[in-house]
Amino acid sequence: MLKVEHIGIAVRSLATSIPLFEKLLNAPCYKKEEVSSEGVTTAFFQQGETKIELLESMMEDSAIAKFLEKKGEGIHHIAFEVADIHAEMKRLEGEGFELIHKVPKQGADNKLVCFLHPRSTNGVLVELTQEIQL
Amino acid sequence: MLKVEHIGIAVRSLATSIPLFEKLLNAPCYKKEEVSSEGVTTAFFQQGETKIELLESMMEDSAIAKFLEKKGEGIHHIAFEVADIHAEMKRLEGEGFELIHKVPKQGADNKLVCFLHPRSTNGVLVELTQEIQL
Repeated sequence: MLKVEHIGIAVRSLATSIPLFEKLLNAPCYKKEEVSSEGVTTAFFQQGETKIELLESMMEDSAIAKFLEKKGEGIHHIAFEVADIHAEMKRLEGEGFELIHKVPKQGADNKLVCFLHPRSTNGVLVELTQEIQL
Repeated sequence: MLKVEHIGIAVRSLATSIPLFEKLLNAPCYKKEEVSSEGVTTAFFQQGETKIELLESMMEDSAIAKFLEKKGEGIHHIAFEVADIHAEMKRLEGEGFELIHKVPKQGADNKLVCFLHPRSTNGVLVELTQEIQL
């Protein structure tokens, strides 16, 4: 893994949380993006080489809606940048980690992504992410 | 804030979780350290400019023991590196954030640290950290 690409934080309302995180991080929200396949709207802040990604649900049964219902607002996942997501998925599956999907998906921010199930990673929802070369 | 200095992850057993994270991150645990003031033993991995810090409780009533009891294993906090912790504490208090302690404490890894209460930060336990100049 190359670096912590972003940290995902589940929030009830971007309208409330974007100004809160702008004050907290002393940095502007530089982008908002809908990821309709996941049923979320995202908002990004840069901190060094890592992004903070706020996630608001757009649908009742999205993963973020379920997380909020169960656990409330808070840290949702850690995303690591990888050079070759297919090779890394194969390596991790070989090590006994459980991939939530077998083929990378299109994520926010022009990325291919894959999630590992928290039951195989000490309760941590881990995302692998690789930038799509245009 | 300068960067994400580390991400803290609560685990029940370093003996189990260190080999798990070595496989997950494909990187060695490069240091273990007891922080007796917090009642925890920590283990560190480097990922780009950010560390992953595993936290195991050494005492029944440590913050990590309480977290594990309430929420189970998982992501516990995000630590941001700051240039001047005293100035940043003052700025954040002025913005309405709630500091858990009013004076920086000695943390793991040769740092001065201060925590913000999650009820003022969207459920995210935020740590400020500044390297102690020797």
